[in-house]
Amino acid sequence: MQLGLIGLGKMGFNMRERLREGGHEVVGFDPRPEVTDVPTIGALAEALAAPRVVWVMVPSGPITHDTIATLANELSEGDLVIDGGNSRYTEDGLHAKLLSEKGIAFIDAGVSGGVWGLKEGYGLMVGGSDADVERAMPIFDTLRPPGDRADGFVHAGPVGAGHFAKMVHNGVEYALMTAYGEGYEMLAAEELITDPQAVYQAWSNGTVVRSWLQQLLAKALKEDPQLAEISGYTEDSGEGRWTVEEAIRLRVPVPSIAASLFARFSSRQEDSPTMKAVAALRNQFGGHAVKRISESG
Amino acid sequence: MQLGLIGLGKMGFNMRERLREGGHEVVGFDPRPEVTDVPTIGALAEALAAPRVVWVMVPSGPITHDTIATLANELSEGDLVIDGGNSRYTEDGLHAKLLSEKGIAFIDAGVSGGVWGLKEGYGLMVGGSDADVERAMPIFDTLRPPGDRADGFVHAGPVGAGHFAKMVHNGVEYALMTAYGEGYEMLAAEELITDPQAVYQAWSNGTVVRSWLQQLLAKALKEDPQLAEISGYTEDSGEGRWTVEEAIRLRVPVPSIAASLFARFSSRQEDSPTMKAVAALRNQFGGHAVKRISESG
Amino acid sequence: MQLGLIGLGKMGFNMRERLREGGHEVVGFDPRPEVTDVPTIGALAEALAAPRVVWVMVPSGPITHDTIATLANELSEGDLVIDGGNSRYTEDGLHAKLLSEKGIAFIDAGVSGGVWGLKEGYGLMVGGSDADVERAMPIFDTLRPPGDRADGFVHAGPVGAGHFAKMVHNGVEYALMTAYGEGYEMLAAEELITDPQAVYQAWSNGTVVRSWLQQLLAKALKEDPQLAEISGYTEDSGEGRWTVEEAIRLRVPVPSIAASLFARFSSRQEDSPTMKAVAALRNQFGGHAVKRISESG
Amino acid sequence: MQLGLIGLGKMGFNMRERLREGGHEVVGFDPRPEVTDVPTIGALAEALAAPRVVWVMVPSGPITHDTIATLANELSEGDLVIDGGNSRYTEDGLHAKLLSEKGIAFIDAGVSGGVWGLKEGYGLMVGGSDADVERAMPIFDTLRPPGDRADGFVHAGPVGAGHFAKMVHNGVEYALMTAYGEGYEMLAAEELITDPQAVYQAWSNGTVVRSWLQQLLAKALKEDPQLAEISGYTEDSGEGRWTVEEAIRLRVPVPSIAASLFARFSSRQEDSPTMKAVAALRNQFGGHAVKRISESG
Repeated sequence: MQLGLIGLGKMGFNMRERLREGGHEVVGFDPRPEVTDVPTIGALAEALAAPRVVWVMVPSGPITHDTIATLANELSEGDLVIDGGNSRYTEDGLHAKLLSEKGIAFIDAGVSGGVWGLKEGYGLMVGGSDADVERAMPIFDTLRPPGDRADGFVHAGPVGAGHFAKMVHNGVEYALMTAYGEGYEMLAAEELITDPQAVYQAWSNGTVVRSWLQQLLAKALKEDPQLAEISGYTEDSGEGRWTVEEAIRLRVPVPSIAASLFARFSSRQEDSPTMKAVAALRNQFGGHAVKRISESG
Repeated sequence: MQLGLIGLGKMGFNMRERLREGGHEVVGFDPRPEVTDVPTIGALAEALAAPRVVWVMVPSGPITHDTIATLANELSEGDLVIDGGNSRYTEDGLHAKLLSEKGIAFIDAGVSGGVWGLKEGYGLMVGGSDADVERAMPIFDTLRPPGDRADGFVHAGPVGAGHFAKMVHNGVEYALMTAYGEGYEMLAAEELITDPQAVYQAWSNGTVVRSWLQQLLAKALKEDPQLAEISGYTEDSGEGRWTVEEAIRLRVPVPSIAASLFARFSSRQEDSPTMKAVAALRNQFGGHAVKRISESG
Repeated sequence: MQLGLIGLGKMGFNMRERLREGGHEVVGFDPRPEVTDVPTIGALAEALAAPRVVWVMVPSGPITHDTIATLANELSEGDLVIDGGNSRYTEDGLHAKLLSEKGIAFIDAGVSGGVWGLKEGYGLMVGGSDADVERAMPIFDTLRPPGDRADGFVHAGPVGAGHFAKMVHNGVEYALMTAYGEGYEMLAAEELITDPQAVYQAWSNGTVVRSWLQQLLAKALKEDPQLAEISGYTEDSGEGRWTVEEAIRLRVPVPSIAASLFARFSSRQEDSPTMKAVAALRNQFGGHAVKRISESG
Repeated sequence: MQLGLIGLGKMGFNMRERLREGGHEVVGFDPRPEVTDVPTIGALAEALAAPRVVWVMVPSGPITHDTIATLANELSEGDLVIDGGNSRYTEDGLHAKLLSEKGIAFIDAGVSGGVWGLKEGYGLMVGGSDADVERAMPIFDTLRPPGDRADGFVHAGPVGAGHFAKMVHNGVEYALMTAYGEGYEMLAAEELITDPQAVYQAWSNGTVVRSWLQQLLAKALKEDPQLAEISGYTEDSGEGRWTVEEAIRLRVPVPSIAASLFARFSSRQEDSPTMKAVAALRNQFGGHAVKRISESG
């Protein structure tokens, strides 16, 4: 089917390719002339036959908001907008309302898979009405991995449910990565272990902990066995923060997701003010000398 | 090749079957007459041609220790004992020494895979000398999943390394399970989400969080969508405790593994003494009435 | 000086008493006829000589908001409103603006001390302009504990700073209570310890951990040595949740405050959905029987 | 009364002074000639009239063990040895047995107070028989803070109970320090707060969080408002590690103590291997470029 696609960055660019390979007609827009198919969003609207379907794949936050606001002007009644970016699910209701005032439908779509999605397909979690989701299904079916639809796609609920599910996905992702990281650190610290990479590699089949992330870590360790080229400094993209915030709203205890989020915050600190305070306290009650009979008191 | 196998419980019974299907001659011993091949460990030793290889697959702790002590008497110089149970790696050196005094070699083998191992193969992490490991390789090759040896088997280092790697595997396993559990709890708590099972199912392909455990949780939720039949009461088998203890020894921070371990402890408490103390404190400084203007101040 | 005081619950009632003992003229309003001095907020405004100072001590949220909106109508230019409740600091700017449109000044005051404040004085953290804070200083000086002003009162910054400091105070309070709770639980679990109460009591002087909360726990344990009459079910009043949310905004890792908050959430669950998922997973990969050779592997 | 005191470091030196001020006759031994009263432990034994009481105040571990072994030889039946160092409580039984073979009694004494103990007195937690504890009570009464004995001293139980209580004290201490540290970090991060020191100072009276550590942190911040001169690098003395290990043995969940211990481990790492693994994983699935539309998805 025909699709407009706004945002041809790392994710959008690959998605356009996968969709075209799947036989869809994609008109892409991006501010960078070297990748765009049309000069403006207006031109994109003109290039599509009504009723249109337009997929937005731009950074979450103001850019997504502005893009949807523009689409509210450029599109027409009966069109459908899909926000495939990492918007906070609380934005979805606002966007749906903005568009519905013009008679335009809205779906939120959480998209997982990163740079591997082009080849393997993207995990999709979408929110919206049954009719709207059904309408975009040919697109979803091409983007998602082959096989049973239920194994790579979910219509998670009404508008907002897709991004909520994707947010939780990313919160879980944070915690899984920390779990594998802690395991790696223990293997690397224990001198009995000849090669942590070989252990991670061996977990690929038959074990309880086998997973895509486990295999990626084995791969990363093969490329750089001591991870010498990689700093622990780690950004967070928002979903982890949102997950903990929503957990608080829902009164759900999430110690492992929160610990993973805080570990990222810590990774970006030169020194920990908390630990400076702890060290200051020890200094106050234990005296200045480093070695003493009763260290902490 | 020929192998003695002591312990025909859930794990050992299936391993005997997999080994026999792989063409090995297995003589199994178990105290339960209905499953054992020989009446005693002594009879098992007699039934095997020297030099023998005997795999011990019994509960960790005293039973493993006693079994190995018995083997030290019943076996002969040149034989090889493999401890495939979940022994703490610190036991391995003692067992190796006990056996080496009789000229008997020792390998520690961490075995993962649970009830699925019979069909899919067991992930194996072993510790010992190169020569000993090479000698038992036909057994390992049959037990491990098919495919590249490195993807389901690792010779992790000298004696102790196998059980250490398996211990870390289980520590990581604890944390992974908690991560998926927290994700499930959030999905179940959010009314936008129609069906948490469908979300977990959809994570099977294309997503960053796809894994064997993710698929098992999707399967469990399919069987019991609200997990209504399952209590949160969760035992821990030792490896999680040992992982945190070893992390402390190695000065490795493991917040997510420790949180997972503590969550298991908490799951087995009727009420939390810590929280009783917290409630008592709030009562002391905030007064007895439940509703008040300044609740905790 | 003269003061209007709205809200005569547990906190406000005692504050009126302490202020009157300190020589101030307090006109109190509360919807409950048995405690109020005047029938309405309008009557309270009339009873005070301009320029008025009115202290609001009502539950945070809509009631505080409505009370301040009412005061914006009933008070006059030059008056001063102090919000002494547990409002979220992000509300303070809105309230200040609402009042400043009528020429009314605003101070936010975090008040700590609970039921003990009447006798010992209240710890005060306030936000506002220098002039406004100076104007209300006679009130603050009576409410705060005797001694150096700096040891029980802080002008923490502009509007919002008082409630922010109080919010952090409560976040720290959560973590301190958990710390003492964990210590109690360990003492109670170890059979060598004859009487946990006696240990807590002995920490009252000379130790590093001595504190008001430590003494309160010793007192609570004296009244109920096994805390048998107290459930671990623990509410949270908002400040703990806000602290973690603000920590996320500020990218400050707060593992111990977050753990304390999550422990409260857990205390209110009959069973943990996270742990039900963990138990379901163990059941999936480990089989149904409770006892098995390789429990979790 | 007469007392032998072995170990005149920061703690022992001050204790000798406090005991002498309290009217006791103290014979001190230390390998450093400038502080010792006698040249050898043998000379110390000779200088005391039987039945002797000897207090050992040396670093925990081998030095304590060797000192007690020496005393087993140098002392006589009916003497009493008190281990006032930070020995792990599991050592106490061994030391008691070693000494009892010579008819020498043993008390373990946990001592808190650090450099402030000289002036304010030391918090004491002791383990041993009623008779032995009674015998040493004049010493305890001088060392402990003045006032009710129960407010600064506890006979916590049989041999081992004193060090166990002190270990828990230090575990709680870790968590309290982290709590105050997190609060400080939040205040320092929020621009509304003019001066975190002033807030901490103001918590000294009337608040729920007031404590000795709170006052020490206020003092430390007065000396160095940004803690600019203090690194977050923080040692741990053993009790924190032991507390978590014993918690695991007792199946007591201690998330806040464990988090505090792990924060110390982290403070001593140049970079976190766990976070290097997390960063490596993000790099694997998200691509190399730092900025991208879908960052972690």
